Amino acid sequence: MILVRPQMGENIGAAARGMLNFGLDRMRVVAPRDGWPNPRAVAMASGAGRLLDHAGLFPDTAAAVADCHYVFATTARPRELTKPVLTPEEAMAQARALVAAGKRVGILFGPERTGLENDDIALANAIVTVPVNPDFPSLNLAQCVLLAGYEWRRQTDGTIPVPDIDLATAIERQHLGDHYEETLEAAGFFFPETKAANMKRNLRSMWARLPLTRADVQTLHGLLRQVVRRLG
Amino acid sequence: MILVRPQMGENIGAAARGMLNFGLDRMRVVAPRDGWPNPRAVAMASGAGRLLDHAGLFPDTAAAVADCHYVFATTARPRELTKPVLTPEEAMAQARALVAAGKRVGILFGPERTGLENDDIALANAIVTVPVNPDFPSLNLAQCVLLAGYEWRRQTDGTIPVPDIDLATAIERQHLGDHYEETLEAAGFFFPETKAANMKRNLRSMWARLPLTRADVQTLHGLLRQVVRRLG
Repeated sequence: MILVRPQMGENIGAAARGMLNFGLDRMRVVAPRDGWPNPRAVAMASGAGRLLDHAGLFPDTAAAVADCHYVFATTARPRELTKPVLTPEEAMAQARALVAAGKRVGILFGPERTGLENDDIALANAIVTVPVNPDFPSLNLAQCVLLAGYEWRRQTDGTIPVPDIDLATAIERQHLGDHYEETLEAAGFFFPETKAANMKRNLRSMWARLPLTRADVQTLHGLLRQVVRRLG
Repeated sequence: MILVRPQMGENIGAAARGMLNFGLDRMRVVAPRDGWPNPRAVAMASGAGRLLDHAGLFPDTAAAVADCHYVFATTARPRELTKPVLTPEEAMAQARALVAAGKRVGILFGPERTGLENDDIALANAIVTVPVNPDFPSLNLAQCVLLAGYEWRRQTDGTIPVPDIDLATAIERQHLGDHYEETLEAAGFFFPETKAANMKRNLRSMWARLPLTRADVQTLHGLLRQVVRRLG
């Protein structure tokens, strides 16, 4: 992630946080307006401060991308029509493939007020544009970095360990169905007679369809037993 | 997007901006700490101020999700093991499909410091967790809203067709929960006293989690009423 002529230290710090949120830790900074290191950036970065400690400082964009095999430039609107314009999703897919092949990839983010200049974009292989609402396209620097980081990680391991839900087996749900059917039969629920078969089938179908856990099944047994025992 | 007990007005305003960036404009706010309207939220929202003007204000989470057919709860770590845990990508795919089928979907975001409480999560059908770096998982409220909005818009062509199921709304499921809770209270089901609160929450959580149709809800009301009337 290469921040080109960033203005506010707070935004640099927030960008560092956004990167680290998604496991990215290699930042480069090109000619920051307020010098380097920047105390406001450090304060904002808090737990992500080490990104700033290890950030590369460069005098211009050309120097910052010198060792990159592939460079993306982020812009609000594609202004340079001779380069491919990609969504973050497409760009990060490409970046992943390049990195997997041992290449170095840089992503340029422009200054807060003006964005990247044409001379910066000229150094890029491709352009990345976040598909924002055209009537309200304002994304700040740190948000752009956050979204790029999110896309990177989403495609790397978008999977969250899913809790091992203890779903009831079919036989457990059938026993639940038996319990309810017998009790409801005794309570005269299946009335009138002509509709009884259909009502029973619907009830069975409900127990079968709902993703009941073993605990749910126990609860549903227990509550019916308790109501029969104590109320009426 | 439902902000539950948000603390800082600035974050509410930033969340509004993040929503509008991705074309979302329906916000609900539950019991904001500093009252409503909030001048700091308005100042931060700037161009997205109309979201705040039209935001719904609710006294509690239950009221805020009452008319929703499907509710997602965002959490940093999945704590409630019986509900499906989805990535933003999976959740927004599901949300798009539901909305395309004419359903109302709510996404709960918790207070800055503490996140959603278990009682809030109990009202949700599923949990959404952003796959952040486990060593640096800090995402603020506005960033979470931004990422959800980004995912919503990224999936411009939602692909999962959802059958036209007549899902019950949250308020219908809450009324079902009320009915069972009151009846079971009278039946002495919530015993011992020390476990009563937890038992009630588990039961609420079960009704919220199961994809109950309107017909299921009617059946579950009816069978309990009939058992109480005729048995015991």
